[in-house]
Amino acid sequence: MKQEMKIPQATTKRLPLYYRFLQNFANEGKRRISSQELSEAMKIDSATIRRDFSYFGALGKKGYGYDVLYLLEFFRQTLDQDEGANVALIGVGNLGNAFLKYNFQKNHNTRIVVAFDSKAPHEGTEVNGIPVYHPDRLEEMYHEYNAELAILTVSSRSAQVMTDRLAAINAKGILNFTPVRLNVPESMKLMNIDLSVELEALIYLIRNSD
Amino acid sequence: MKQEMKIPQATTKRLPLYYRFLQNFANEGKRRISSQELSEAMKIDSATIRRDFSYFGALGKKGYGYDVLYLLEFFRQTLDQDEGANVALIGVGNLGNAFLKYNFQKNHNTRIVVAFDSKAPHEGTEVNGIPVYHPDRLEEMYHEYNAELAILTVSSRSAQVMTDRLAAINAKGILNFTPVRLNVPESMKLMNIDLSVELEALIYLIRNSD
Repeated sequence: MKQEMKIPQATTKRLPLYYRFLQNFANEGKRRISSQELSEAMKIDSATIRRDFSYFGALGKKGYGYDVLYLLEFFRQTLDQDEGANVALIGVGNLGNAFLKYNFQKNHNTRIVVAFDSKAPHEGTEVNGIPVYHPDRLEEMYHEYNAELAILTVSSRSAQVMTDRLAAINAKGILNFTPVRLNVPESMKLMNIDLSVELEALIYLIRNSD
Repeated sequence: MKQEMKIPQATTKRLPLYYRFLQNFANEGKRRISSQELSEAMKIDSATIRRDFSYFGALGKKGYGYDVLYLLEFFRQTLDQDEGANVALIGVGNLGNAFLKYNFQKNHNTRIVVAFDSKAPHEGTEVNGIPVYHPDRLEEMYHEYNAELAILTVSSRSAQVMTDRLAAINAKGILNFTPVRLNVPESMKLMNIDLSVELEALIYLIRNSD
């Protein structure tokens, strides 16, 4: 189900959340829900919810609310939840190691299938059952394991180099945990999570509240 | 330097980034910069930069650009970079452990000063030089170490309980890494980072690109 309209990134980020909450409501046997109820459960204001949903056409009826199972099916298809994705992890330091152990268990079909680290031997090793190879074998093993996108948890120094190598083998996306602002080709999707920046922003909010 | 205007959260999140890039430009001896140059370095479009800056009053001159040192001083004061903050880490699992080892070295004055984990002994232990206590001692040690805000990396099951205890001791903010949508009092600032959601959103972007 491809969307023709340009959906704002902030809305995109809420889609998996909507899906998760709708699953909860469906599991509780709820069949109908108002934007107000969804708003209270998700701590997102109901105007935002209605605006988000409007990007996908009229999904609810005034005075009736939304049909939970219809919405659930809609978001399931939109998010391609059945399909999942194979992820490569680049850099097994402290954060990378945590990801290998956590491995996004919530996403049943999305998981880290292969990892790379400059300390790993050429023939590979294993962490939590996931193979870890030396970056020398990135191009070979990325395809071998059918990886579609990468999580980047290398040092700042290596971030752009590894990105260029991922671009050269047509990796479709990078979840970037380094503080580096990466240069990526148009065809590659990029999402940045800078933990220091998030922390600084929270401190700013605290200091500047009324 | 308190702001009277309500600044969007997306803008807030970019402030530490602006500060970091302006530091780089200043270190390179640059004294004047256009929104276009800043845009290219930061991979943020220049209209967004100009709009962000407009929340803080007219900081640049048309045809001249921005004065780097003036901007740097402005953001330094706005972000209270000199002051920093003491952070408590709640939950030393895989992710919490990574944070203790990483400890946000970029933020010179902001660091994790104390951590809590249910596996820690009552008398405390240490990870990477940071004291880790049993959560029984949260109320006592949070104040002892002058913590101002908390990073929450506990299991979903414990997330709201720990949040309520943090609220009761007037913790000013929480950086929430659990997938739980937390109930917090008005006075407490909350920032959510759900790594599974970020990954799902990236996959959605990849699948729905043209």
